[in-house]
Amino acid sequence: MIRAGIIGATGYAGGELVRILTGHKDVKVVWYGSRSYIDKRYADVYQNMFRIVDARCMDDNMEELAEQADVIFTATPQGFCASMMTEEILGKTKIIDLSADYRIKDVKVYEEWYGITHKSPQFIEEAVYGLCEVNREEIKKARLVANPGCYTTCSILTAYPLAKEGLIDMNTLIVDAKSGTSGAGRGAKVPNIYCEVNENIKAYAVASHRHTPEIEEQLGYAAKEEVVVNFTPHLIPMNRGILATEYASLKEKVTYDEVKAVYDKYYKDESFIRVLEEGVCPETKWVEGSNYVDINFKIDPRTNRIIMMGAIDNLVKGAAGQAVQNMNLLFGLPEEEGLRMVPMFP
Amino acid sequence: MIRAGIIGATGYAGGELVRILTGHKDVKVVWYGSRSYIDKRYADVYQNMFRIVDARCMDDNMEELAEQADVIFTATPQGFCASMMTEEILGKTKIIDLSADYRIKDVKVYEEWYGITHKSPQFIEEAVYGLCEVNREEIKKARLVANPGCYTTCSILTAYPLAKEGLIDMNTLIVDAKSGTSGAGRGAKVPNIYCEVNENIKAYAVASHRHTPEIEEQLGYAAKEEVVVNFTPHLIPMNRGILATEYASLKEKVTYDEVKAVYDKYYKDESFIRVLEEGVCPETKWVEGSNYVDINFKIDPRTNRIIMMGAIDNLVKGAAGQAVQNMNLLFGLPEEEGLRMVPMFP
Amino acid sequence: MIRAGIIGATGYAGGELVRILTGHKDVKVVWYGSRSYIDKRYADVYQNMFRIVDARCMDDNMEELAEQADVIFTATPQGFCASMMTEEILGKTKIIDLSADYRIKDVKVYEEWYGITHKSPQFIEEAVYGLCEVNREEIKKARLVANPGCYTTCSILTAYPLAKEGLIDMNTLIVDAKSGTSGAGRGAKVPNIYCEVNENIKAYAVASHRHTPEIEEQLGYAAKEEVVVNFTPHLIPMNRGILATEYASLKEKVTYDEVKAVYDKYYKDESFIRVLEEGVCPETKWVEGSNYVDINFKIDPRTNRIIMMGAIDNLVKGAAGQAVQNMNLLFGLPEEEGLRMVPMFP
Amino acid sequence: MIRAGIIGATGYAGGELVRILTGHKDVKVVWYGSRSYIDKRYADVYQNMFRIVDARCMDDNMEELAEQADVIFTATPQGFCASMMTEEILGKTKIIDLSADYRIKDVKVYEEWYGITHKSPQFIEEAVYGLCEVNREEIKKARLVANPGCYTTCSILTAYPLAKEGLIDMNTLIVDAKSGTSGAGRGAKVPNIYCEVNENIKAYAVASHRHTPEIEEQLGYAAKEEVVVNFTPHLIPMNRGILATEYASLKEKVTYDEVKAVYDKYYKDESFIRVLEEGVCPETKWVEGSNYVDINFKIDPRTNRIIMMGAIDNLVKGAAGQAVQNMNLLFGLPEEEGLRMVPMFP
Repeated sequence: MIRAGIIGATGYAGGELVRILTGHKDVKVVWYGSRSYIDKRYADVYQNMFRIVDARCMDDNMEELAEQADVIFTATPQGFCASMMTEEILGKTKIIDLSADYRIKDVKVYEEWYGITHKSPQFIEEAVYGLCEVNREEIKKARLVANPGCYTTCSILTAYPLAKEGLIDMNTLIVDAKSGTSGAGRGAKVPNIYCEVNENIKAYAVASHRHTPEIEEQLGYAAKEEVVVNFTPHLIPMNRGILATEYASLKEKVTYDEVKAVYDKYYKDESFIRVLEEGVCPETKWVEGSNYVDINFKIDPRTNRIIMMGAIDNLVKGAAGQAVQNMNLLFGLPEEEGLRMVPMFP
Repeated sequence: MIRAGIIGATGYAGGELVRILTGHKDVKVVWYGSRSYIDKRYADVYQNMFRIVDARCMDDNMEELAEQADVIFTATPQGFCASMMTEEILGKTKIIDLSADYRIKDVKVYEEWYGITHKSPQFIEEAVYGLCEVNREEIKKARLVANPGCYTTCSILTAYPLAKEGLIDMNTLIVDAKSGTSGAGRGAKVPNIYCEVNENIKAYAVASHRHTPEIEEQLGYAAKEEVVVNFTPHLIPMNRGILATEYASLKEKVTYDEVKAVYDKYYKDESFIRVLEEGVCPETKWVEGSNYVDINFKIDPRTNRIIMMGAIDNLVKGAAGQAVQNMNLLFGLPEEEGLRMVPMFP
Repeated sequence: MIRAGIIGATGYAGGELVRILTGHKDVKVVWYGSRSYIDKRYADVYQNMFRIVDARCMDDNMEELAEQADVIFTATPQGFCASMMTEEILGKTKIIDLSADYRIKDVKVYEEWYGITHKSPQFIEEAVYGLCEVNREEIKKARLVANPGCYTTCSILTAYPLAKEGLIDMNTLIVDAKSGTSGAGRGAKVPNIYCEVNENIKAYAVASHRHTPEIEEQLGYAAKEEVVVNFTPHLIPMNRGILATEYASLKEKVTYDEVKAVYDKYYKDESFIRVLEEGVCPETKWVEGSNYVDINFKIDPRTNRIIMMGAIDNLVKGAAGQAVQNMNLLFGLPEEEGLRMVPMFP
Repeated sequence: MIRAGIIGATGYAGGELVRILTGHKDVKVVWYGSRSYIDKRYADVYQNMFRIVDARCMDDNMEELAEQADVIFTATPQGFCASMMTEEILGKTKIIDLSADYRIKDVKVYEEWYGITHKSPQFIEEAVYGLCEVNREEIKKARLVANPGCYTTCSILTAYPLAKEGLIDMNTLIVDAKSGTSGAGRGAKVPNIYCEVNENIKAYAVASHRHTPEIEEQLGYAAKEEVVVNFTPHLIPMNRGILATEYASLKEKVTYDEVKAVYDKYYKDESFIRVLEEGVCPETKWVEGSNYVDINFKIDPRTNRIIMMGAIDNLVKGAAGQAVQNMNLLFGLPEEEGLRMVPMFP
């Protein structure tokens, strides 16, 4: 049994980790870290876990946890993981960091967009960006995995094959993304309360959202050029789900079949990526509760643009599910282990 | 492998059966029956099943299906199962009927509340009412299981121990129930469309809902007296979940601990019934996607009444989950097999 | 022009007062009191008021406000209004208190249910309970109006004619109420955030909600006997609306027409109470945004009970609308002035 | 009093017309046309109108109606209005057509996108496109007003000043729009039922939505060049509201103040257009129930694009409200008459 510790177990991503790991036959959760609820029973914080999880919440002592766990998931605010990381910890246990601390290779870019000083830049180089379908082999050998953001997972995977194969003009890429409200976390703030979100939609962090440089860096690797995009997130009155609608100019005329072949080249053997059939638009509800990414596209000959669409469950493939997928890779387990949840509809 | 057939596989309860059976290690679905979608691929009707279910929809030929399946689930409109049932079919396969056809022992009561003539009353006597926690041993030996209704499962289990032990005056029992909209089915009717349900609540079928006699019959067995109740269902703007709030006068003064002991007497070893801790009110969200029933109660000394509350996922414990639980009993499998889904939150 | 001041203008009830008074041709709001947002522009707190309300938020100095306003609405937490009230203030201006401070005549009952000491019990006697349809004439002469609670308005009006005419056994009255989430206020607490409320339903404050004694007192006056009820509120995933489902045993056999005649006796000339046609169940959506109360009932001969149903918009008839209706009575205006909003559907 | 007739009074746009006209002091609705509900009381179809509207539904005989009404609103499926229009009708009454029949000047474009043959192309030239803020003077003199579509109203007004003043490269314009579900109408279809829409988001009609040529034509007039855009609508789980997020490359470097000045040039005296303050993103909830358009923008120097955002209530400014605004213009009334509804929040 893999002994897993979670720091930040009482946020929504942490809760989803507990849900998934509880159903994972090779894992035992040994530490439910939650600074806000120390000593409180976990099931009192998440009543769905009543009679399923018996443990109490612990503090966030990563050094002590490193002794007890084979892998630590940090589902914590930006800066926390970087502030705790030491060579000693990495020598004892694997780290899967769900925050942004090790996602961006250029520490200046990180510090600029996040507005904080990175406390352990010496580990950035070694960290592997945990987008499983892209970096599978590197992840297997890693000590420290930077689990991608929810918007970024969806945004990158939706465009990745076309960027990689040079079908689209990267200067024209626009990502218009829509997210359910669990992405805003479990913090009690007026903009998150029910009556403010319900029956409402808005864009936010326009031209300034922190997931922008992460998208740019990764698609830049794929396209082998510097990429600058417009990324606009929107808040949607639903619990879970991200839909990314992406626009780009085609470099030359292509047919549906040609584009489909490019997607298939990269994704047809992927367990968790479903390129839908022609004409079917992805819907977040069809992936809810699962680790799937549903993708499709439409060529518009009138504008010579391609419209790409991708849908994920932000808490699963966008956070906890991908983290477990990374864990499976790290420990040589089948990549799908514990992640075979069928999407729940309705 | 148990070969399972589903008639009515494209309704919401049928879809949930597919979801659950897909994750059940001892079952293979051999027949996706759907009169409305014959020959259409199942995954085209439920896109969440894309690349998970490859089959096409079949007709509802129960005779043919009886040859191929070890168990048939009928998630069909009232009257269908009764109209198809024969001794020959029952000789070849087990039947778990999710409709009301065999739930009510008195065929006159059935015909009165449902307004249809029962086509095979000769099987009513033999049918076992599939409320697993109450009729476990009878179910194990059955050929024909009448899977309980969603409202009834929740309403009965919430009051059952107190009825059985004679703590409450059955003449005073009132069940005020609230259900998510998946209970109304996937039929396209104006009252079910989004804008009519959203931001709205209403009672319906007041003093006339068909689940009433089912509740009365079963609680009558428990209380060993004739029971007549007020049952009022309400439609709630959410996909899944039933909450039953039940009121009854206490026959004599009792303490919290005494009532708790009665609940524990019946439920403490049940895998799927969670009697919550004192003061915690059940919430439908805490059981969503799972087979749990969450129950609690509050004694009001001012009125000498007890208020009982129960929550289920109407598509799981209220339909497909309980049907699979019944199947597990019929085939001698662990009762929890395929049903260990952790409730999904949020 | 009536000069109106609002203390607590940035809560949801306060916001609704602003919305309604903005459309009232005889009123000018002169004071937008909000302790939390002093000096902030009101339209920055409620962006819907951009270019409609130009004012900045003020403090809650009732003495000063009493000099400037002909009427003060206090949409404030329990205890505030009582702590500020003086004979001097009442000598200068009318007060419509949307809190519970003056609703309950027996100060001990108030202090017990609310857990606070009443700071100005000397004004309780004089205060008029502002349920317009019941106390119209007293309200016209009042200086201090205790605006009823949202649950209570709905619960009382739904049963009032039957209590008054002695048709129902008051000892059997049970009120099962369901409310949208705006009733929980604009406070940022985890239980109010979107993902906790959405796709969920729960009862709360079972057998202990503070609106209970208010219902009991008022229905007691109507029935001319002491009344003790079970009142159970539930939180519903919608913004606005309360539905009360009420159960009581009939004292003797009555027909639909007899009961209808009793409702008509009290309500047929009321502008804001609509007793629906036979068989139509009230839905909260049909009154949304308006001051209407929709009521209907169903007699169940099987149990000899009557099920009464009432629906309101909790922020209008349950708070701000009724407050304006009271203001109209206080100032001799047509009772419907400023309140002719047609319910918005969908 | 203006006598108004409505054809299609029982759709959502028709219902909203009734709501608005009921509150309009200069209008009397004389005809509630509804082919589906002939002879049924209007308030039985829309229970919110109980005791407010007494009339029964009529057929759709426009010739007869033209005798009785000063203005006819046609809130009917595409093709209906065109099929009924005659010189005689136009000689007797004004027509405000909420369908697309007269919106597009090039009948071939109409026939191609809508897939129907236009039955009265002879009136297309004379029809005035009823976007009040753009075509005010022409509307005043019209007999036949083509009321704009919901998506188009929002999409055009959001970009109009920048197109008109040549600030943006029209070849780069992308409109990503999100709409509440009332836009899908009151038809009973599976994709519209509650459980299919709730907790879900999807794009639809990608690169093929019928509002595309309407946007292109109108922005083409503004920019004085042929315009081809990508327009992608999305379905959102809420009743009302459209948010358009629009992207375009700036022709040259501009500052916030310069762009703001351009918006102000066209909109600062408009009653129903609110250009928000810097940094405030439009939210559909802030305009709900009102005729407002809330607009703002953000310049992204990294990509040299401008992101424009606009929010409306699709049933008000996107349909019935704008129709009434057009009526006010046609009859020389103050443009705001009957349209001063304050947005309802929450």
